Amino acid sequence: MLLLHRAVVLRLQQACRLKSVPSRICIQACSTNDSFQPQRPSLTFSGDNSSTQGWRVMGTLLGLGAVLAYQDHRCRAAQESTHIYTKEEVSSHTSPETGIWVTLGSEVFDVTEFVDLHPGGPSKLMLAAGGPLEPFWALYAVHNQSHVRELLAQYKIGELNPEDKVAPTVETSDPYADDPVRHPALKVNSQRPFNAEPPPELLTENYITPNPIFFTRNHLPVPNLDPDTYRLHVVGAPGGQSLSLSLDDLHNFPRYEITVTLQCAGNRRSEMTQVKEVKGLEWRTGAISTARWAGARLCDVLAQAGHQLCETEAHVCFEGLDSDPTGTAYGASIPLARAMDPEAEVLLAYEMNGQPLPRDHGFPVRVVVPGVVGARHVKWLGRVSVQPEESYSHWQRRDYKGFSPSVDWDTVDFDSAPSIQELPVQSAITEPRDGETVESGEVTIKGYAWSGGGRAVIRVDVSLDGGLTWQVAKLDGEEQRPRKAWAWRLWQLKAPVPAGQKELNIVCKAVDDGYNVQPDTVAPIWNLRGVLSNAWHRVHVYVSP
Amino acid sequence: MLLLHRAVVLRLQQACRLKSVPSRICIQACSTNDSFQPQRPSLTFSGDNSSTQGWRVMGTLLGLGAVLAYQDHRCRAAQESTHIYTKEEVSSHTSPETGIWVTLGSEVFDVTEFVDLHPGGPSKLMLAAGGPLEPFWALYAVHNQSHVRELLAQYKIGELNPEDKVAPTVETSDPYADDPVRHPALKVNSQRPFNAEPPPELLTENYITPNPIFFTRNHLPVPNLDPDTYRLHVVGAPGGQSLSLSLDDLHNFPRYEITVTLQCAGNRRSEMTQVKEVKGLEWRTGAISTARWAGARLCDVLAQAGHQLCETEAHVCFEGLDSDPTGTAYGASIPLARAMDPEAEVLLAYEMNGQPLPRDHGFPVRVVVPGVVGARHVKWLGRVSVQPEESYSHWQRRDYKGFSPSVDWDTVDFDSAPSIQELPVQSAITEPRDGETVESGEVTIKGYAWSGGGRAVIRVDVSLDGGLTWQVAKLDGEEQRPRKAWAWRLWQLKAPVPAGQKELNIVCKAVDDGYNVQPDTVAPIWNLRGVLSNAWHRVHVYVSP
Repeated sequence: MLLLHRAVVLRLQQACRLKSVPSRICIQACSTNDSFQPQRPSLTFSGDNSSTQGWRVMGTLLGLGAVLAYQDHRCRAAQESTHIYTKEEVSSHTSPETGIWVTLGSEVFDVTEFVDLHPGGPSKLMLAAGGPLEPFWALYAVHNQSHVRELLAQYKIGELNPEDKVAPTVETSDPYADDPVRHPALKVNSQRPFNAEPPPELLTENYITPNPIFFTRNHLPVPNLDPDTYRLHVVGAPGGQSLSLSLDDLHNFPRYEITVTLQCAGNRRSEMTQVKEVKGLEWRTGAISTARWAGARLCDVLAQAGHQLCETEAHVCFEGLDSDPTGTAYGASIPLARAMDPEAEVLLAYEMNGQPLPRDHGFPVRVVVPGVVGARHVKWLGRVSVQPEESYSHWQRRDYKGFSPSVDWDTVDFDSAPSIQELPVQSAITEPRDGETVESGEVTIKGYAWSGGGRAVIRVDVSLDGGLTWQVAKLDGEEQRPRKAWAWRLWQLKAPVPAGQKELNIVCKAVDDGYNVQPDTVAPIWNLRGVLSNAWHRVHVYVSP
Repeated sequence: MLLLHRAVVLRLQQACRLKSVPSRICIQACSTNDSFQPQRPSLTFSGDNSSTQGWRVMGTLLGLGAVLAYQDHRCRAAQESTHIYTKEEVSSHTSPETGIWVTLGSEVFDVTEFVDLHPGGPSKLMLAAGGPLEPFWALYAVHNQSHVRELLAQYKIGELNPEDKVAPTVETSDPYADDPVRHPALKVNSQRPFNAEPPPELLTENYITPNPIFFTRNHLPVPNLDPDTYRLHVVGAPGGQSLSLSLDDLHNFPRYEITVTLQCAGNRRSEMTQVKEVKGLEWRTGAISTARWAGARLCDVLAQAGHQLCETEAHVCFEGLDSDPTGTAYGASIPLARAMDPEAEVLLAYEMNGQPLPRDHGFPVRVVVPGVVGARHVKWLGRVSVQPEESYSHWQRRDYKGFSPSVDWDTVDFDSAPSIQELPVQSAITEPRDGETVESGEVTIKGYAWSGGGRAVIRVDVSLDGGLTWQVAKLDGEEQRPRKAWAWRLWQLKAPVPAGQKELNIVCKAVDDGYNVQPDTVAPIWNLRGVLSNAWHRVHVYVSP
């Protein structure tokens, strides 16, 4: 990545005839809230590891590209700067046909002509089309520089209507009224409860997913918890002692920090829907994200409450502090054997990427169960107990299970299938997008791959011809530890486009270190809840003549 | 199975008008050696668990069927009993066209007309066609009863040439000359080294595979070791103590007994060969078998030699006492973490199904690594050591690894792939056979399913239409322990044959508790060594009009 960076810098320097370009620029955090006032730094990274490095390089490229674009467009003038537009008007300008408008503060810009020049790629700028730039500049803060602002000024067409700045009134009887404000880049699958995923281009832009665009899977309204009065109740073992732990108490346990990928069981459900209707949210490829989590180990907390591994099978049940109008809380469980195994590294996490957990991700404490389906990573954790049986929660017993394609809602017997714990090997293509047109010559294909149970991804095969022939992709991201490969690998393949090819059927499939592979097609793994969708991912693109 | 047994007994009793039939008959062991003289009991089972139960029921059915057949054929006479036949002549009678002959002791029988009446199914009797019955009666010893012998007498056509009883001379310079005698039911893929698999019908006849037909995967000649002088050398840890353990010493460690399925990495390789040539033995679906193993735990032996789990990755290297002409022994390794984990239950086994290990299976001691590819279960174990790196053995570093279909012998980089340890989920159909004709009305489909790493098989889906629609098979065999599902599940499905159907494309696929599934097709998992062949298993059959 650094080599690539240097090469690009060199070429850009030559093109721009600039004498010097800073090769590293520090990321400054920006606000991600709705009204775009600075709130609290949500993207401050102080480390110098490969993930933050990646961000910097990306940011630098964006900055340089902006400079380059500025050279080409210095003669534009902002004659129409006195016009006033409503937010609604801006939001209707999202295509080359209507014009592509964005806002920054109170200013409105028509960037239609700039989109194709955007160094991060047109698709990334298009994510902001019809709305504010701030949330995206928060992700790639290098934009916040004078030369980028000067460039943008050339495209100014007017001002936002000041009345539009008033926050919308909220319906106070709405249980979701107090949900936090989200990043506009998220693709929303459901507003209430809030479920959303990052767009694929952003998903694999970073090995560590920035908190604001980490996929969000809520089952209920987001509780608003006071960290000072928060207590985690841990039911003691017979003869042991129940615990009521404050946040400070949790911080007093030895601190562990691990990188873990979370994936929703319903990731890629939309592909199952194409086979036959299922019940569930229409997740595309983005119900998966990776963060650096810090917290106390569950095994240490359980030990303090007097629990130990027993011969008979037992389960650790978690209850969230989110609840429905009847007071029923979200709940789930994992086997005690996993919870008590120090090697399984199950955390009671209070930090996500160096910050307190965002509200959408379980503030102040959530469970992180490496290698296990997202549904067991209970957020807003209120209660932990050890039981002889799995959690009686709906989400443990009547959801998040896999069935044969022959099973429908009339014949399903939820007791006949085990609850999903470890997930099977998974991979998906994030670039190019389905239906996109790619340049002839060479195509760059990017994506992610991950497997459950700590199994490392050892290979990703990519095909340009629908699976007839294969090439091995290059794996990026951190090396994985044996048996503890909790985090994904990002991957890419640069491949020549076969001459004369007008279309490509791009396919990817991953292999984990148990040599598990993904199935070829979706229909034979179809199931009525649309979970466990891990067939080969397929993207059809056109080649520009 | 018992219910089925009772129903059949009832029907047979009615049909035969017999007053009583013993519902349980004890299995007596018979010889399995080449000259068919009693040697040592190889199939004595004293327990009353479900597996021996299964054998008894099968045996009883065979016996009853024989009685029934006897009723129908009492009028046959043995006019030709004075004829003398050579073994060679007998061996040329293996089809309905040539006549189907078998021998018992020195007598020769033409059972052509009886084959279709054989209660165990024609295919099982056909396994003995052209040769002796004794090895099969050793498996199903209930045949050894007077009424079965009376029945058989009706089909006698002559005597074997007495000269044929002389054992063939052996080439003493042949390193394989001292290999043990094998069961004739085994389908031989290679004589030197000996590699053979049981026929599918026998494979899933029993949950526990009888020792004589357990698949055999040898890389070198079988050593002939004296149990009295045998010593296992265990290299001690720094500061610890090296051990030289006799068989008695091993017996003094706590004894553990577990049921474990072993599978060769090359199982079902013949299906890969159909896609494109590979290097390897042409295993069909039988390079997998299940036994009850007893022995000392590797972790206990390593602990006595002063080893403990260390922070850095290390490996336990095994060396066999089998060696090639240059003195190079078979070798392999597993991660120390697995070896030291009591939950992983790695054994130094000295017993297989209640008997000392047969020579072909590692007498006197082999490693059993539950959930891991057969290649690491080193036989005739001579030496155990802990090393910072994997075994330098050819079989660890230059074999038993998986690659992309795009990799060939010119481009392969063995260091780029991890050695196979845990195997992916697997299943296969053992009945009916490919190309067979099945009755219209109802078809019974049988097979096995297994997954590596202790992952339990949770479901087997079966299709009669090539994978368009699916039915869930019934899982038989022992319940599996969570995280320690070391043994296979047998399964069966009785399904109506759709009316008017002339052919069936039967397919099976299994799911394990990590919700891993088998890939749809072979070509995308093809690899130059033909290992890890776990695509859906497909059998094409005809329906009798």
